[in-house]
Amino acid sequence: MQIRILVTGGTFDKEYNELTGELYFQATHTRDMLRLGRCLLDVEIETLMMIDSLDMTDADREIVARSCAQCEESRIVITHGTDTMVETARAIAAVVRDKTIVLTGAMVPYAFGSSDGLFNLGSALSFAQLLPPGVYVAMNGQHFEWDRVRKNTATGVFERV
Amino acid sequence: MQIRILVTGGTFDKEYNELTGELYFQATHTRDMLRLGRCLLDVEIETLMMIDSLDMTDADREIVARSCAQCEESRIVITHGTDTMVETARAIAAVVRDKTIVLTGAMVPYAFGSSDGLFNLGSALSFAQLLPPGVYVAMNGQHFEWDRVRKNTATGVFERV
Amino acid sequence: MQIRILVTGGTFDKEYNELTGELYFQATHTRDMLRLGRCLLDVEIETLMMIDSLDMTDADREIVARSCAQCEESRIVITHGTDTMVETARAIAAVVRDKTIVLTGAMVPYAFGSSDGLFNLGSALSFAQLLPPGVYVAMNGQHFEWDRVRKNTATGVFERV
Amino acid sequence: MQIRILVTGGTFDKEYNELTGELYFQATHTRDMLRLGRCLLDVEIETLMMIDSLDMTDADREIVARSCAQCEESRIVITHGTDTMVETARAIAAVVRDKTIVLTGAMVPYAFGSSDGLFNLGSALSFAQLLPPGVYVAMNGQHFEWDRVRKNTATGVFERV
Repeated sequence: MQIRILVTGGTFDKEYNELTGELYFQATHTRDMLRLGRCLLDVEIETLMMIDSLDMTDADREIVARSCAQCEESRIVITHGTDTMVETARAIAAVVRDKTIVLTGAMVPYAFGSSDGLFNLGSALSFAQLLPPGVYVAMNGQHFEWDRVRKNTATGVFERV
Repeated sequence: MQIRILVTGGTFDKEYNELTGELYFQATHTRDMLRLGRCLLDVEIETLMMIDSLDMTDADREIVARSCAQCEESRIVITHGTDTMVETARAIAAVVRDKTIVLTGAMVPYAFGSSDGLFNLGSALSFAQLLPPGVYVAMNGQHFEWDRVRKNTATGVFERV
Repeated sequence: MQIRILVTGGTFDKEYNELTGELYFQATHTRDMLRLGRCLLDVEIETLMMIDSLDMTDADREIVARSCAQCEESRIVITHGTDTMVETARAIAAVVRDKTIVLTGAMVPYAFGSSDGLFNLGSALSFAQLLPPGVYVAMNGQHFEWDRVRKNTATGVFERV
Repeated sequence: MQIRILVTGGTFDKEYNELTGELYFQATHTRDMLRLGRCLLDVEIETLMMIDSLDMTDADREIVARSCAQCEESRIVITHGTDTMVETARAIAAVVRDKTIVLTGAMVPYAFGSSDGLFNLGSALSFAQLLPPGVYVAMNGQHFEWDRVRKNTATGVFERV
């Protein structure tokens, strides 16, 4: 069973620019993270965009949804900024019905050493192998159907609605 | 749904003794790892022993199996050294039939900074929520039924048999 | 011989706010860094301010200079943002002549795991023990008299002038 | 001013073998550490041996002393296991009199993420630039003349005698 990982950026992949002191995107760390996790799943990594999810437009979400629909894999993990993760999940659910799609992200950039990203990636890849078709958010060790979750912006935590 | 985490030691929890230059066990890092992963699952952590799995005796395995049988949770994750993980899984499977039990571990100690442990813990906790009753090994992003897996000691990798 | 460490903030002590995605200051990491370095020097740590050195005003520099002049130690290390480190050094040199004062900083926050801060702190504390009275910048393993150095903003490197 | 770094192994450079669970030596991390510290000193790194200092023989010490005597640099930093660091310093002092030689090491391997090595390396390189000719040990932010120091094996700390 092959799993496709679609990369969209988000905190997951942010880096620190030591000349400007700002956070920015370079290449994704997904491959490094899979290596660190000694992951032996058959995964195909595809970078769709490298952006902050607050900057994600409807056109960007259409790209993500179309990539989900058109790829040959039926199990997909999407790395995504947490702020608009649920919106993108909704956009995907509107057009893809027969695949298991799990969105995940991180509260702290992987490059900063104390990130939740590795935990979430292990979790999302595992959920993606077992959940029935649908669009899900996997954060904090939990999984939620896309229309049953929201991010609590005060606490940074995803909670069931 | 509450999940019980049974800690037995293994590479997961090894530390470096800077006076002797040897690896040893102190307290488990499981709670730190869950905090790092921002895990919000309802977990109960219980340390059964802190030993290298090569030193695990039949009596130790009996303790692990009995703890699985007697705890009130029906979903259990066990942190365990990789060398004899499959043997312990067999000992548990002999006495527990109606619970979902997932053994996991690490190739590199969590305290050493570049460990696969966080990935594996996220993965094992996710598998434990979805798999039907049975005893499983979760490593490398994969899961195996206990009687369909062995550790390849040459490569350090768990493979299907 | 006691050494005073004056903390002013700078990249050294920046942290990542996982709710806003911005960098900010909390408490200094200096004590943690000394513990990690197993430092056994007799040091007194004093936090003067926690700010980005681009935000440092003349009034702030006066506070730093006065603290150097008034403390009882004759050997002082100052942690400081790199952008205006030389300006602060000049302000100190204008009023303190009989002490050895070494400013240091970091290009990457200590909290991000791959920081040059620990190297620089070890270096600055060592220079402070041996250099004659004067005001110095210690970065990149090197030391410079305050009026013989500038930060090359294109490369992020301190160079002799 | 060029500084020569002579590598002999020691805890500094130990790594974790994830197949055997034992510590071993591969290549030195010195270059990586200098890169992390953004070190811009003109250094020449030479690996003499990669051994635990408890395994160091008189013949090994002779190699170290001869390398100090014969290299063209007059300022030298030696990375060394802490257990017999003072013995090697004595062997060097017996044959080299006109150079500044600083031995340093680490209590925790650099590869383990929470090492004192980076602090010590920054410290040793700084001491080596300023100290007069002699053989010194630099640990814990301090420096000692070779015949005025011993390692307290109970505490792991170098102390003046």
